[in-house]
Amino acid sequence: MMSLLHDVLQLRVRYSETDQMGTFYNSRALEWFECGRTELMRRRLGLSYAGLEAKNIFLPLVEAHLEYAGGARYDDLLAITTTLAAAGRAKLRFDVRIAQQANGKPVVRGYTLHAFTDAAGKPIRPPAWFIEQLHRAAEPASDPLT
Amino acid sequence: MMSLLHDVLQLRVRYSETDQMGTFYNSRALEWFECGRTELMRRRLGLSYAGLEAKNIFLPLVEAHLEYAGGARYDDLLAITTTLAAAGRAKLRFDVRIAQQANGKPVVRGYTLHAFTDAAGKPIRPPAWFIEQLHRAAEPASDPLT
Amino acid sequence: MMSLLHDVLQLRVRYSETDQMGTFYNSRALEWFECGRTELMRRRLGLSYAGLEAKNIFLPLVEAHLEYAGGARYDDLLAITTTLAAAGRAKLRFDVRIAQQANGKPVVRGYTLHAFTDAAGKPIRPPAWFIEQLHRAAEPASDPLT
Amino acid sequence: MMSLLHDVLQLRVRYSETDQMGTFYNSRALEWFECGRTELMRRRLGLSYAGLEAKNIFLPLVEAHLEYAGGARYDDLLAITTTLAAAGRAKLRFDVRIAQQANGKPVVRGYTLHAFTDAAGKPIRPPAWFIEQLHRAAEPASDPLT
Repeated sequence: MMSLLHDVLQLRVRYSETDQMGTFYNSRALEWFECGRTELMRRRLGLSYAGLEAKNIFLPLVEAHLEYAGGARYDDLLAITTTLAAAGRAKLRFDVRIAQQANGKPVVRGYTLHAFTDAAGKPIRPPAWFIEQLHRAAEPASDPLT
Repeated sequence: MMSLLHDVLQLRVRYSETDQMGTFYNSRALEWFECGRTELMRRRLGLSYAGLEAKNIFLPLVEAHLEYAGGARYDDLLAITTTLAAAGRAKLRFDVRIAQQANGKPVVRGYTLHAFTDAAGKPIRPPAWFIEQLHRAAEPASDPLT
Repeated sequence: MMSLLHDVLQLRVRYSETDQMGTFYNSRALEWFECGRTELMRRRLGLSYAGLEAKNIFLPLVEAHLEYAGGARYDDLLAITTTLAAAGRAKLRFDVRIAQQANGKPVVRGYTLHAFTDAAGKPIRPPAWFIEQLHRAAEPASDPLT
Repeated sequence: MMSLLHDVLQLRVRYSETDQMGTFYNSRALEWFECGRTELMRRRLGLSYAGLEAKNIFLPLVEAHLEYAGGARYDDLLAITTTLAAAGRAKLRFDVRIAQQANGKPVVRGYTLHAFTDAAGKPIRPPAWFIEQLHRAAEPASDPLT
């Protein structure tokens, strides 16, 4: 259950993501989590999630958790730090921290837990090449990951 | 190009549909248009759009037009009046008016224009049974449609 | 920490809420949670959340948890069961179960935890009248709520 | 009614923006239009729309038009070309073309028309400094803008 990989993505809050309270609507954070893990997979694993689906490997969410720590307004620049926290035999977990890029103030933190399935939703085992690619990409154990 | 069918759907503005201006975010209107035509098809034509897709008939948008006439706040009850305005050989057009249920104040009006395609996006001709069902369901020409 | 109030809302999956996997996109569940608690407050407490905000009482999310149990396709009719599970001095918690209306198959379960704040986001104590209204509305302790 | 300013923004289709047809859901295009004009204003006019609102100048949509020309799948990289097409006394119009970055294939084209209002939604005249800033930023009339 070692911390395998992490990545930081910058992203601006869209007007469409705000609500009448003046901050982002709560569900948008899950969409930002998705952007974070998409880029982590592309940049750190060298594979696109779109490409995975083309190989009949899907990663539907089975669980999500979010803690809202602070506001984020329209056009604020956010830093989304995603960590591939666990790669078990049948699940992937991404831990996410979102903070204001300007001053590091926390906005949301949480995680998503994913199953491996085929297109029909049937659970599958992650293919060997996928697990190997994860391990090859993983930073050395001595890497002081957050 | 006679006016064929119309239907009114009531719907409340969700908090997630507001933005920091305090009214609904502009793109939500297209989602409400979708709700309007889904219910028109179910109630007036006796067919579900989900069922159409199961028969390999898709109705992707080719054009949309929106005129924003007034605000709508969280929890406001809206009346969505949808009219199946035209059923040509290759296109369907839905005209939509959204107003405040309480006082009739206009919120949005516009239309969507749809092609007939198969699942792959290839244009198809609408099947004869579909056209017949439209005509059977159509109100008499004397019906004072708005 | 007794179970105070519950309510069931029916709602159809919109096309806009699906994704290319053919089921609903994960973040939509948080929007359905919102619909559930809005109606619980209206029907069981006799107050609109819009009205609360007009009195400068806001209930921003501080935490959300979701467990995805099954798919839900476009136009599926869902039953959203919301329970006001806890009304402490400074927090409200809503427990939510979403299931297929047709056959009871579970779709999502989870909760949202809310703080009491003013419009500026400053924590406030829930006003006495609000707490009283909660307790007046609460079902008898013997009610075998889930 | 000369063409004043234009800008190109690149953006990837999010999974949350797809629908069960496998392409983007139609309303997302209006959200991408927003991203395009936000960046045009920042890069070409040197002003943030957030900053405009802070000065009590709002630009609500009064009209939008969209023509859907082709699909765009999850993770496709899009090029959003936004042109500030008209700056009348009381309205702004942004013309938008969205195409696949990889091969230029058209995805959507359309426009949004905006009024000038204050925070309460009351129409206002655009301030002189705003009009001047537009004209200073405008490319020479000889620029062969589309």
